[in-house]
Amino acid sequence: MAGLGPDRLSLNTATLRAQWSLAECIEGCARHGIAGIGPWRDKLQEMGVKEAARAIRTNGLEVSGLCRGGWFTAEGAITQAVVDDNRRAVDEAAEIGAACLVMVVGGLPDGSRDLAHAHALVEEGLAVTLDYAREVGMPVAIEPLHPMYAADRACVNTTRQALDICERLGEGIGVALDVYHVWWDPELAAQITRAGRDRLYAFHICDWLVPTRDLLTDRGMMGDGVIDIPHIRGLVEAAGFTGLNEVEIFSAENWWKRDPDEVLTVMIERAGAC
Amino acid sequence: MAGLGPDRLSLNTATLRAQWSLAECIEGCARHGIAGIGPWRDKLQEMGVKEAARAIRTNGLEVSGLCRGGWFTAEGAITQAVVDDNRRAVDEAAEIGAACLVMVVGGLPDGSRDLAHAHALVEEGLAVTLDYAREVGMPVAIEPLHPMYAADRACVNTTRQALDICERLGEGIGVALDVYHVWWDPELAAQITRAGRDRLYAFHICDWLVPTRDLLTDRGMMGDGVIDIPHIRGLVEAAGFTGLNEVEIFSAENWWKRDPDEVLTVMIERAGAC
Repeated sequence: MAGLGPDRLSLNTATLRAQWSLAECIEGCARHGIAGIGPWRDKLQEMGVKEAARAIRTNGLEVSGLCRGGWFTAEGAITQAVVDDNRRAVDEAAEIGAACLVMVVGGLPDGSRDLAHAHALVEEGLAVTLDYAREVGMPVAIEPLHPMYAADRACVNTTRQALDICERLGEGIGVALDVYHVWWDPELAAQITRAGRDRLYAFHICDWLVPTRDLLTDRGMMGDGVIDIPHIRGLVEAAGFTGLNEVEIFSAENWWKRDPDEVLTVMIERAGAC
Repeated sequence: MAGLGPDRLSLNTATLRAQWSLAECIEGCARHGIAGIGPWRDKLQEMGVKEAARAIRTNGLEVSGLCRGGWFTAEGAITQAVVDDNRRAVDEAAEIGAACLVMVVGGLPDGSRDLAHAHALVEEGLAVTLDYAREVGMPVAIEPLHPMYAADRACVNTTRQALDICERLGEGIGVALDVYHVWWDPELAAQITRAGRDRLYAFHICDWLVPTRDLLTDRGMMGDGVIDIPHIRGLVEAAGFTGLNEVEIFSAENWWKRDPDEVLTVMIERAGAC
């Protein structure tokens, strides 16, 4: 399998969160020949959605996804505020032409130990959001997060679990698979096959470092860790995924401290071996 | 459901790893009325297995398990050294009358990204060890570790995965479930039911802190985190588990720095709400 050229990559803005605005990320992608971008909403709103949409179009970039909707458990119930925020996320995703809206579903509500209740809230919130997203024609992608985030970020933690939800909710909902979150799963190959083209909406790459020094902000650049990225990419492509490979690296002590053009150069070089 | 009295508890020596020898842990359990002990092999060997067995017997303690056999991937192949070390672990477990030998199976071999190979090594190593353990009559308990340890400690990361291995290997092998490792799993209830009395060999308790500041040594005392321990204990008991509740807390910055008798006092108090 040939490695990835920049024409197969997308830059998730989290990778340069500390260095660049969305406008700078867009220009940087264009300068480095990176085909797509995956903005986070904070950077999108900072730039302004219309202005961002224009700049993305002008620079000929694809949008591999918008991060993030979700966080359904934040208030312990699916309040109007939660519903509205997710509708806005759907609208923003549509306005920038995103391939999907990526959902980080939320963990346990504050003070709660009731995981089953959190699961129920998440499914209720997804269902409500999906109703609207279908009207708009925006695919909703559940991102199963690594189980170490079950308490405080997302209580959907395996591909199987995400696909079970998708099957209960019907069309227009699928998964965003990030190798960081799913690489360890002994069922990964089987679940990717199960997902198939119809449920594989996004694919994120980075690496798992050994040791990992922080649960949130110590992700590795591709090649610096233990994840067999070509293998997993082979699985999603065999299942029919044809989207971009979005690079999302939270790295407070390393990549966020480097020159952003150097980060993009290394990212492209490393992707060549993915 | 009534909370746990000290007569339902076992002290895993890791909880006082920084403070006490095994001899001191044994005396401490006796002094606090804690029914059992779960030694780690380093402390066991430091004391001497015969001497430890005698002290445990003299003090009337049960041994809820010996930590740990396994580490099958350490040399990238099931070498004689790996086999021998696991045979010694079985013998030591038998000599102290342990309810089971707890297996931390090992992660990826150094420099490897081949998770499937690691899985195969683990199953081969377990099969070889099980042959011997059956002769000795020592139950072998696979401990599925949290997925955040897949690379460097254990590539068996869910109860389902562990039980799949058990079913392939037959009798005399089961699981050691630690709430820390499995609490997040949406399949946990179903898999505990599947395990049943015949495969549930050990049950460990502690808590998941939010935030968790270190991947290895920031476990919480029961009640300080988000795990619904009474719920999970109810599941294992409904499935037929009647063993002790072993308290295993890796806590470099908190419990390992406290007076050990205070730790045991708090542990007993907190178990009353588990």
